[in-house]
Amino acid sequence: MSSVVDARRGRLLIIGGAAGPGLLGRFVELAGGAAARIVVVATASSAPTAAETEHLAAFESLGAGRVEALRIANRSDACDPRVEPVLRSASGVFFTGGDQERITRVIGGTVTDSLLQELVAAGAVVLAGTSAGAAMMSGTMIVEGDAPGVSRACVRTGPGLEFLPGVLIDQHFGQRGRLNRLLSAVALAPHQLGLGIDEDTAILTDGDDFEVLGSGAVTVVDAGGAEIIRVPDRGPITLTGCRLHVLPAGHAFHLTGRRPRVIENEAS
Amino acid sequence: MSSVVDARRGRLLIIGGAAGPGLLGRFVELAGGAAARIVVVATASSAPTAAETEHLAAFESLGAGRVEALRIANRSDACDPRVEPVLRSASGVFFTGGDQERITRVIGGTVTDSLLQELVAAGAVVLAGTSAGAAMMSGTMIVEGDAPGVSRACVRTGPGLEFLPGVLIDQHFGQRGRLNRLLSAVALAPHQLGLGIDEDTAILTDGDDFEVLGSGAVTVVDAGGAEIIRVPDRGPITLTGCRLHVLPAGHAFHLTGRRPRVIENEAS
Repeated sequence: MSSVVDARRGRLLIIGGAAGPGLLGRFVELAGGAAARIVVVATASSAPTAAETEHLAAFESLGAGRVEALRIANRSDACDPRVEPVLRSASGVFFTGGDQERITRVIGGTVTDSLLQELVAAGAVVLAGTSAGAAMMSGTMIVEGDAPGVSRACVRTGPGLEFLPGVLIDQHFGQRGRLNRLLSAVALAPHQLGLGIDEDTAILTDGDDFEVLGSGAVTVVDAGGAEIIRVPDRGPITLTGCRLHVLPAGHAFHLTGRRPRVIENEAS
Repeated sequence: MSSVVDARRGRLLIIGGAAGPGLLGRFVELAGGAAARIVVVATASSAPTAAETEHLAAFESLGAGRVEALRIANRSDACDPRVEPVLRSASGVFFTGGDQERITRVIGGTVTDSLLQELVAAGAVVLAGTSAGAAMMSGTMIVEGDAPGVSRACVRTGPGLEFLPGVLIDQHFGQRGRLNRLLSAVALAPHQLGLGIDEDTAILTDGDDFEVLGSGAVTVVDAGGAEIIRVPDRGPITLTGCRLHVLPAGHAFHLTGRRPRVIENEAS
């Protein structure tokens, strides 16, 4: 589907939360369907057993060949040598939702982290994440913030695990009216492309390209060409000349070229 | 402040709701301060007496020379010959919040409507409106819609009274996270410029120019240069290449040129 494939990046399925069977089934299919070996990581969740059980059942019912949970509750788990054979035998790894800072705090810089980077770059696994599991994939993560308006105070960011560098990802996007906080985050880091992913919606990367999947849309905020950006300590941000694209399924986007395009001739 | 003055348009103060004394005081000042003759129209309100009382007290306490309420509850009120001398003696007319469709239904096409258009165009009155009173000033009014996402279903529009033609105005903008519905409305009518006005924030027009006033920001959505717009009956809208500006006080915007600019050298 992509004309330019960047060998540095494997395939990522980044879901804005609340994935329905269509998206989860697509993940199973990408991981090999009946031959898939799927590993669920619920590190973000405060109730990992429930999150694991729910996802294992979903992937089994969607025909995945083998599914298992990998419990990584703390940094010693993430450095445990038993992690390596589990991940090396996987064809798909799925990060559940919860708190994205738990993922970066527990996994960041560990052997689990570097092994996942290696396996994704080699194209050995499809890496998927929903909600917090989506946020952590970005270069800069939106950690929290639901204050009104576009201001420094209305968003808190932190470093992501950079599976997809150069982007800021926000989730539950349309459902929670988060365009203001994504605009705020992009004004603070205009070199990063803002991606707001709706619930039951995902981007599937392929090199420097991504395709939109699911029932909602992906909102792309590109402040690269912005003429005036002012971020006062208090009060509203100024941001002029920002480009914005709202892309449902049937559309793709080239990340480095910052260009949307239509895949299908007619979406409606 | 404006270099281009369009004689067709008088001065409009369009407030996104919840105006503090700074903005209300600016209205009193524009209407002449101690010499001001202010008329409050609470047609939008379901509790007009309370809305009138509150606004009369506010304008009096801010030093307005004379304040009075003009009760226009139905179309016979709006056609009553007693309206004319009241409006002709006014230097400022203020429309309160409530339901914007009550304003267009009760006043649209009546002698009150044409008289206001005449007085504003002549520069005889400053016309101000907050919330519903702001919405009705536009060419196309956003009537309702708070569904998530960017879609046809998430916004309902109707014709405004066109004191400021060519624009779509939304209010309580940052506070209610309404960028999605403004994007939806602009995708449905890309010739209209979308203006999302925060609470305690206003635009003050001067010919083809407006200046931003107050504590929040005005978000301008310009789909004039959008490359792809698809609005299916159901499901998410596609909109690519939309321009967006977030403008707090200290900034102005040229409506026909669709260009923002800085008024002050430093906003922070």
